[in-house]
Amino acid sequence: MIKVGIVGGTGYTGVELLRLLANHSQVELKVITSRSNVGTAVSDMFPNLRGKVDLEFSEPSIESYRQCDVIFFATPNATAMHQVEELLAAGIRVIDLAADFRLKDLKVWEKWYGTTHVSPQSVEIAVYGLPEMNRELIRKAQLVANPGCYVTAVTLGLLPLLKHGLINPASIIADCKSGVSGAGRSASLGTAMCEVSESVKAYAVKGHRHYPEIRQNLRQLNTLADLVFVPHLMPMIRGIHATLYTDVIGDISNVQALFEEYYAQEPFVDVMPAGSHPETRSVKGANDCRIAVHHLPDSNKLVVLSVIDNLVKGAAGQAIQNMNLMMSIDETTGLHGLGFIP
Amino acid sequence: MIKVGIVGGTGYTGVELLRLLANHSQVELKVITSRSNVGTAVSDMFPNLRGKVDLEFSEPSIESYRQCDVIFFATPNATAMHQVEELLAAGIRVIDLAADFRLKDLKVWEKWYGTTHVSPQSVEIAVYGLPEMNRELIRKAQLVANPGCYVTAVTLGLLPLLKHGLINPASIIADCKSGVSGAGRSASLGTAMCEVSESVKAYAVKGHRHYPEIRQNLRQLNTLADLVFVPHLMPMIRGIHATLYTDVIGDISNVQALFEEYYAQEPFVDVMPAGSHPETRSVKGANDCRIAVHHLPDSNKLVVLSVIDNLVKGAAGQAIQNMNLMMSIDETTGLHGLGFIP
Amino acid sequence: MIKVGIVGGTGYTGVELLRLLANHSQVELKVITSRSNVGTAVSDMFPNLRGKVDLEFSEPSIESYRQCDVIFFATPNATAMHQVEELLAAGIRVIDLAADFRLKDLKVWEKWYGTTHVSPQSVEIAVYGLPEMNRELIRKAQLVANPGCYVTAVTLGLLPLLKHGLINPASIIADCKSGVSGAGRSASLGTAMCEVSESVKAYAVKGHRHYPEIRQNLRQLNTLADLVFVPHLMPMIRGIHATLYTDVIGDISNVQALFEEYYAQEPFVDVMPAGSHPETRSVKGANDCRIAVHHLPDSNKLVVLSVIDNLVKGAAGQAIQNMNLMMSIDETTGLHGLGFIP
Amino acid sequence: MIKVGIVGGTGYTGVELLRLLANHSQVELKVITSRSNVGTAVSDMFPNLRGKVDLEFSEPSIESYRQCDVIFFATPNATAMHQVEELLAAGIRVIDLAADFRLKDLKVWEKWYGTTHVSPQSVEIAVYGLPEMNRELIRKAQLVANPGCYVTAVTLGLLPLLKHGLINPASIIADCKSGVSGAGRSASLGTAMCEVSESVKAYAVKGHRHYPEIRQNLRQLNTLADLVFVPHLMPMIRGIHATLYTDVIGDISNVQALFEEYYAQEPFVDVMPAGSHPETRSVKGANDCRIAVHHLPDSNKLVVLSVIDNLVKGAAGQAIQNMNLMMSIDETTGLHGLGFIP
Repeated sequence: MIKVGIVGGTGYTGVELLRLLANHSQVELKVITSRSNVGTAVSDMFPNLRGKVDLEFSEPSIESYRQCDVIFFATPNATAMHQVEELLAAGIRVIDLAADFRLKDLKVWEKWYGTTHVSPQSVEIAVYGLPEMNRELIRKAQLVANPGCYVTAVTLGLLPLLKHGLINPASIIADCKSGVSGAGRSASLGTAMCEVSESVKAYAVKGHRHYPEIRQNLRQLNTLADLVFVPHLMPMIRGIHATLYTDVIGDISNVQALFEEYYAQEPFVDVMPAGSHPETRSVKGANDCRIAVHHLPDSNKLVVLSVIDNLVKGAAGQAIQNMNLMMSIDETTGLHGLGFIP
Repeated sequence: MIKVGIVGGTGYTGVELLRLLANHSQVELKVITSRSNVGTAVSDMFPNLRGKVDLEFSEPSIESYRQCDVIFFATPNATAMHQVEELLAAGIRVIDLAADFRLKDLKVWEKWYGTTHVSPQSVEIAVYGLPEMNRELIRKAQLVANPGCYVTAVTLGLLPLLKHGLINPASIIADCKSGVSGAGRSASLGTAMCEVSESVKAYAVKGHRHYPEIRQNLRQLNTLADLVFVPHLMPMIRGIHATLYTDVIGDISNVQALFEEYYAQEPFVDVMPAGSHPETRSVKGANDCRIAVHHLPDSNKLVVLSVIDNLVKGAAGQAIQNMNLMMSIDETTGLHGLGFIP
Repeated sequence: MIKVGIVGGTGYTGVELLRLLANHSQVELKVITSRSNVGTAVSDMFPNLRGKVDLEFSEPSIESYRQCDVIFFATPNATAMHQVEELLAAGIRVIDLAADFRLKDLKVWEKWYGTTHVSPQSVEIAVYGLPEMNRELIRKAQLVANPGCYVTAVTLGLLPLLKHGLINPASIIADCKSGVSGAGRSASLGTAMCEVSESVKAYAVKGHRHYPEIRQNLRQLNTLADLVFVPHLMPMIRGIHATLYTDVIGDISNVQALFEEYYAQEPFVDVMPAGSHPETRSVKGANDCRIAVHHLPDSNKLVVLSVIDNLVKGAAGQAIQNMNLMMSIDETTGLHGLGFIP
Repeated sequence: MIKVGIVGGTGYTGVELLRLLANHSQVELKVITSRSNVGTAVSDMFPNLRGKVDLEFSEPSIESYRQCDVIFFATPNATAMHQVEELLAAGIRVIDLAADFRLKDLKVWEKWYGTTHVSPQSVEIAVYGLPEMNRELIRKAQLVANPGCYVTAVTLGLLPLLKHGLINPASIIADCKSGVSGAGRSASLGTAMCEVSESVKAYAVKGHRHYPEIRQNLRQLNTLADLVFVPHLMPMIRGIHATLYTDVIGDISNVQALFEEYYAQEPFVDVMPAGSHPETRSVKGANDCRIAVHHLPDSNKLVVLSVIDNLVKGAAGQAIQNMNLMMSIDETTGLHGLGFIP
């Protein structure tokens, strides 16, 4: 059994990790920490876990972490970087669900996250945890930077196009729609039911932290890649829908087949039949990404639709997928849950 | 492996059966029928099943059913009664998720369902599939009548009180709130998003088919039992919340302990701590029923709150629980999924 | 023109007052105060008011209030009681949308609101602002206590029954369902979209502040009146649905006619045809209360369904109705908006 | 008083016309027809109209229409074209809320609407009813083609840019998000609560009828104009959010001022301050279009955000605005309702 700890599991990625790990056949949950909730039963905070998770939140301490093979950080940004070196030194594998180790260029990271990075050497050894890009590296990683939710949906929708040089890499538009859970679990007016239900809005049009992360991914396939990224808040709990507009420059007569082939071996990427319109609900609660490709008639535009559950393939599910790879067990273990219809 | 067939799996209980059975370790899905969708891949109708369920809808036929150990009817009311005798004669176990075999009194059934029953002898041998009432009978049953959704939530909330004679059995009020999926999957104005979202209403105040079914259950514990039952439509997809008002006649000083003890061995009934307010979301997608008991201050009223997912413990999950019992495997197999928060 | 001021208009009752007053033909908005938002344009906080309300939030001061004929308090409980005497002394009429002057029994008030009342004499002169009970008193009032939202829906549903002695006054059950806006506009986890959407729960089963207020109203018609009151949180923004269960003791053969007659002259109470199920959306944004009466077959139970918009007839709309009465203009002025379907 | 008739008022644009006209100070509703609902009170179908609209649906007939000054067609596409000539001949002004007279090029119309047009001469005299483009023509029109909902939001967001030649007219991307009411009021699985709530999807990526209509509008300002248009279905009732991506070719240093100036005299277009993110809820129920302009940093992209209520400025409200212009009364009469927050 893999012994697992969670640091800071009081947010939505934390409870989603617990929901999934509770049914993971090869995991033993050893410790979950939260400085402000020491002694509280996890299932008192999250009643869906009653009878399934018996842990209490405990004080963070290296001693308790030492009993673990893997530690997940489900903490705010700029938290894991303070503790990661000690954990790695103790031989514990670390998966950070926040952004501390995602961007290789520290200047870019510091600009977008507004603070100085305290562990540049960890950034250097960290592997970016998108299995569809970095599977072999993840298998050998000590530290994995779990990707952002928007980033996952957008990157998976574009990889085959950039790989095959089919689109102008510098003229991508990513119009993304997210459920409210992407904003996290906190007392804030901006995510109140009465403020966001029955309404749609764009936000952060001038710049969102997932922009440099997407760009970094795309540039691994084409150094000229760049994009416009506009996120929107949807009146729903879970789900991301990325609508990707690209300018065709190559021969796309086989684009459907290219996508299918590119992802043929991927357990969690589903290329839908030509002409499909994937719904976010089809992946609600599941670790899947569903993609459809549309060449617009009488146009040089190729539109890709890509959907995920922001809390699963966009966060906790992908983190577990990474853990499975790191621990050399079947990559899909614990991730067989299906989406919810209705 | 248990070989399973589904008759009429194009509704919400059908797709929910498929979602759950796809991960049931001891089930092999053999056949799913739908006269109007012959040849359609199940996953074309329900994209959440893509890659998980490879069946196509086929023509109903006794030949195809013969390869099955168990057949689930996920059909409209008054359908299964026409086919059940042939299936039972072939030695196939049958679980009907509709209402054909729920009411023992045929006159009552015919009044509420508006048609003549064609298989009275099936009603006679049918076991009412609420494991918390009839577990041992279900184990030996050839035909199980799977309970109604409201009925499950209300009955489980009242069993301990009637068992111990704590309440006036004739003065129960069940104010029930249901998500829209309880109305089924069909093209109807009454369940359109623009008609039911952002609104609440009572319906069927003058009489609902689940009323005689609840009453039949309660009268097994007290022949004088009766209730007022008013269902309400909630602007959400899944979930039932039953608020049960009862008049105390016995000593309720230990009522919390009595509930906990009554359900101590039940894998799917969770008595919450005194003072709790269960949320329907805590059982979303899960086969659990969560219950809380409140004695109102300065009053002879005991209020019980009982929540289920209408499609799981209120339909498909309970049907699988019944199948597990009938086939002598662990009752909880395939039913370990947790509720969704958020 | 009636010169109007609003104290503390940064909550949902505040913005709803502004939405309605902006189109009130006989009102001039003079001042709106908020200590923490001095200098902010009201329409920067509430963009729906852009181009319609040009005021800025200003510092509370008796000088600015002196230019007003009427002051609305849209403040938290236990605020207006500190300022009301000075305003009344200055000849300004006051309408409090909070609870400071609703309960005549100060001991009861202090128990439920957890603080000492600083202006008992104001409570004494305050008129309870339910026009359907107190119209003539409101016309002459200097200080009006605007009713609670649940209280309005429940009281209006019961008045004719108590008036005519048709029900056992001590055995009323009010199962009430409210949209989330009833909890106010604030940064709180408990009203976050991801916490309350797609879920239903009861709350405050052991006791809610609207209980003594409903009881006070009912006891004006029958000194023995009492009730069980259980509020529930619904996954929607606006609307209250009260389901009222009563035990018949009188002759109810004409109950439909009695309701219609009782409210025949009321501009904002609509008794629906026998057999109706009012929807909360039919009053969304409107100052109406819609009521339906059902005598359950083979039973001594009479069920009344009563719906309002908690922010309109349950708060801001009723406050304006009271202002119209106090200022001797047509009671319906500014309150002609219709509910939203869809 | 303007005497008004409505043909086919059983859909959402019909009930919204009635909601708005019921409070229009200069309108007298004379007749509303629906072949399949003759004799039904309008307020029985739409309870929000109870006490406000006393009409019954009647049989369509030229005699009844003759008593009207204006007839609104709230019918399906390809209906009004069969009746319009007779009405115009009788001197009645006609406003069609469907698409029969929107496209000047009949070949294009017939391709997208799949039928032959029976009244080409009506198309010729019809004025396209977007007041911000055609105000003076509308004043003199006998027949107005009321614009599509998406078309209104997109066109208003682009007019100033095309007018001033600031963008490449052939490289516009319109990513549009709509509430479900845009799909109309009908019994269809595709708009059921359980199918569209808590989910987002694109639809009609290969082509939507509003595409040629938007293009026709844009080409009035620049004959080279063209766009990619992808509509998405949002889990909400009302509202359209258009996110418009354009390539800058002119000097946009004053783009905010240009928008403000362009719309300075428009009563229903609100250019928000630089940096704003308009929410659809801010126009819920209102006839407003709110627009914000963003020049993306380090980019040649100008992003325009444009929101309307699809049933008001996108349908019934704009139709009344057109009627006001045609009948030479104040353009804003009856359209002063504010958006709903919350």
